[in-house]
Amino acid sequence: MLKVHGMSTSGNCHKLRMTLEALQLPYAWNEIDTRAGTTRTPEFLAMNPNGKVPLLEIEPGVYLPESNAIIFYLAEGSALLPSDRLLRARVLQWLFFEQYSHEPYIAVARNLRSHHPDPGSQRALADFKMDGGYRALAVMEEQLSREPFLVGGRYTIADIALYAYTHVADEGGFDLARFPSVRSWLARVEAQPRHVRMR
Amino acid sequence: MLKVHGMSTSGNCHKLRMTLEALQLPYAWNEIDTRAGTTRTPEFLAMNPNGKVPLLEIEPGVYLPESNAIIFYLAEGSALLPSDRLLRARVLQWLFFEQYSHEPYIAVARNLRSHHPDPGSQRALADFKMDGGYRALAVMEEQLSREPFLVGGRYTIADIALYAYTHVADEGGFDLARFPSVRSWLARVEAQPRHVRMR
Repeated sequence: MLKVHGMSTSGNCHKLRMTLEALQLPYAWNEIDTRAGTTRTPEFLAMNPNGKVPLLEIEPGVYLPESNAIIFYLAEGSALLPSDRLLRARVLQWLFFEQYSHEPYIAVARNLRSHHPDPGSQRALADFKMDGGYRALAVMEEQLSREPFLVGGRYTIADIALYAYTHVADEGGFDLARFPSVRSWLARVEAQPRHVRMR
Repeated sequence: MLKVHGMSTSGNCHKLRMTLEALQLPYAWNEIDTRAGTTRTPEFLAMNPNGKVPLLEIEPGVYLPESNAIIFYLAEGSALLPSDRLLRARVLQWLFFEQYSHEPYIAVARNLRSHHPDPGSQRALADFKMDGGYRALAVMEEQLSREPFLVGGRYTIADIALYAYTHVADEGGFDLARFPSVRSWLARVEAQPRHVRMR
């Protein structure tokens, strides 16, 4: 059975839960608290030398890291990943956008403001992340004002990857009021069968 | 014909040149100087709302951004991208590693130290990038001490993506002396047919 090593409050880990639930794949979840240093132990580094969650254990001893590589792997051959070559590349376009232009701002601001033991001490750093986060939301708004989902007019892993931290962006201090198309899209994602919100 | 909108000193853009040359695909190159603000003009934002190069123009009016999505698209069906499902996911694993754990440190330090009009003013910021860059190099060293290439024992777009900024890491102040397996791998990449170094 597939096994996820992940932390439930992490959006990157939540992408796996959304994908596994949507595809109705059975899985076990090994809850890891990264703040306790678990991902820096020799045991964990033997599974993932980059010391990060999520980590998918495909079978005993076979590990795949990187959230967006994992959901691409899981979704191969399903309706969540188009088979057309250009549409697949567009899905990847949004997955790389998420990791480079969205997560480092929106997820990091959320961590500093809502999941740090002393958020007050992190305020300058969190404030510094706002411009980049709003730029990413504006890029999403532009696309979602024209199409119901990010790629090809239907729900894919691109939507899952971007939903993960966008639906909790308020925890990073982001106000979605000026992004009406993003908000409508969040509701469309939440209306998908077997949708799960982050705990 | 394929058209690349790119900047020759950018490693992200160089990935496209390496892939196109390796695959012997004809292409035109439209040189863009991002420091001149070209990528923030209305004309450019109409092609890529995220305002970044590289940008592949597949046919007139059809644009694909994100360097790693582009090289995945170009390499589909070629020897540069395995057809096996798990090996493809491992290629993606390294592409996401590159964009999240490598480029934001090694490429950014290089930009600040060697491509900024006033490098002295950027020194604190560049210094701040060194630990993350060395961590990424150590992860590569660990893999390349066991295998000749990053994925599946052969040259793929994962090697192209990681080569781009690793082979000019010295311009960011990184010393590769303590990474012998990375240095041997750089030489193996440079021995590939139709290899091109960055200008």
